[in-house]
Amino acid sequence: MKLFIIGIGLIGGSFAKDIRRLYPDTTIYGIDSNPSHLDEAMALKIIDAKSDYEDLGVADMVVVAIPVNALVAELPKILHKVGDDCVVIDGGSTKNLICETLEDHPKRRNYLACHPIAGTEFSGPSAAIERLYEGKTNIICEVEKTAFKLQERALELFRQMGMRIRYMNPLAHDKHIAYVSHLSHISSFMLGKTVIEKEKNERDIFDMAGSGFESTVRLAKSSPAMWTPIFEQNRENVIETLQEYINNLQKFKDLLEKGDYTGIYNEMNDTNKIKEILKGIPHNKQ
Amino acid sequence: MKLFIIGIGLIGGSFAKDIRRLYPDTTIYGIDSNPSHLDEAMALKIIDAKSDYEDLGVADMVVVAIPVNALVAELPKILHKVGDDCVVIDGGSTKNLICETLEDHPKRRNYLACHPIAGTEFSGPSAAIERLYEGKTNIICEVEKTAFKLQERALELFRQMGMRIRYMNPLAHDKHIAYVSHLSHISSFMLGKTVIEKEKNERDIFDMAGSGFESTVRLAKSSPAMWTPIFEQNRENVIETLQEYINNLQKFKDLLEKGDYTGIYNEMNDTNKIKEILKGIPHNKQ
Repeated sequence: MKLFIIGIGLIGGSFAKDIRRLYPDTTIYGIDSNPSHLDEAMALKIIDAKSDYEDLGVADMVVVAIPVNALVAELPKILHKVGDDCVVIDGGSTKNLICETLEDHPKRRNYLACHPIAGTEFSGPSAAIERLYEGKTNIICEVEKTAFKLQERALELFRQMGMRIRYMNPLAHDKHIAYVSHLSHISSFMLGKTVIEKEKNERDIFDMAGSGFESTVRLAKSSPAMWTPIFEQNRENVIETLQEYINNLQKFKDLLEKGDYTGIYNEMNDTNKIKEILKGIPHNKQ
Repeated sequence: MKLFIIGIGLIGGSFAKDIRRLYPDTTIYGIDSNPSHLDEAMALKIIDAKSDYEDLGVADMVVVAIPVNALVAELPKILHKVGDDCVVIDGGSTKNLICETLEDHPKRRNYLACHPIAGTEFSGPSAAIERLYEGKTNIICEVEKTAFKLQERALELFRQMGMRIRYMNPLAHDKHIAYVSHLSHISSFMLGKTVIEKEKNERDIFDMAGSGFESTVRLAKSSPAMWTPIFEQNRENVIETLQEYINNLQKFKDLLEKGDYTGIYNEMNDTNKIKEILKGIPHNKQ
């Protein structure tokens, strides 16, 4: 198989590693706007050769793992370059604008809209890890618009990678992912900001931080270049979730101000059921 | 050595495990208001015997690891029961009200006010782990009020447990810990609440959650019985940090509403320096 990875970072590089393990005869070509990422991916043997869009005609599969604004700009061009028997998949954290953009593309049937729910807060080729996707959910949108034998090829790969498949329409995807992913990133970034601002005046407060703080601000290490276009594309849903979160924080603060500690207890106790919910979320095997 | 652990949960039990390893000749007595915790601690061999306050006269060291409202109520009674050569330490997440309460106690010199910054979101004797405190910071308040040879005994134990010691006054402790610990718990609880509320109407959105969501809501598994009195005792500081956090979230939302994506990028980019800060925080070895 001839595989092209466009965007050799955490997501694209981890795809490459699994595909090399599962299909040892594959030749993996890398395309990246950042030349040092390509050099690094070559050195790490994640890819076999550097390439560019002009070579895409020979591809059997293309994995596009670039920021969501770049997906909207590049996927139409990529689809024009690939052959009729090539399947193009992406890993974008938003799906609606991308699917809308490609709706009338003559090669729409060559594209399978995917969002594998997997990752870490790190980025670049060196962040790529084997089996990142094992046990994780891959959300596929508008599956009926992809040619059946190309669906089969991609789904067989996902099955071998150990992914669970969930089918969803792009609007529902974007709405729900705002709650379980996009909001977590904002809560983490703003928590980090609040404490960094305090540290400026109060020095050395991070010496007092433990693993609980670390866990809640871990996502504040994420890439702004990747996340800004996600928030832009999913703006309305993100604003709605953020408003609900602020309302809940405000209500908690009101209870504290009134000294209603039974109310405070109940707020936390009612949320403790998250224990059961979290048991169902697969861990990374890092 | 005769050691009494009052409150055989995660914190008290982990102290017991380390002390047994470091001082094998120690006899460990357990006191707990919950009889099933005592049975569990006996079965797990965390303690050698069940005990009560009437036996405290023979203690060389007492570790009190109970919720902070119970500390305020129980520490005065415990100090009355211990001998002149016994050191009493606690693990409370607030320090000011506790230090104020004990200020004029006739046995104040037997008490060392501690806050070991260590823990997990789990509770009870079965949550106790060896070496929980290794590499962690232990904040000691008003060290000068403790008898010197009792300070020495406690500090030698902390040294052998591998803890870093930081001295601080109780007011500064409570103010700073609101930022790096108490706020993280509220952000996590309210994030969990926001998503659980959505799930009620939208079903199955947790299937879409990944490890990022899990990380930010992990602390929402924490015990409401432990955290309600912490928020009560540290009410003013917590309200202040919570207001700053809400302001930052509101500002982020305003930027999104205005479509100021350069502003959004800068907010995240400025907070990315948390990467360097987090490198200094020790991980749990679970």
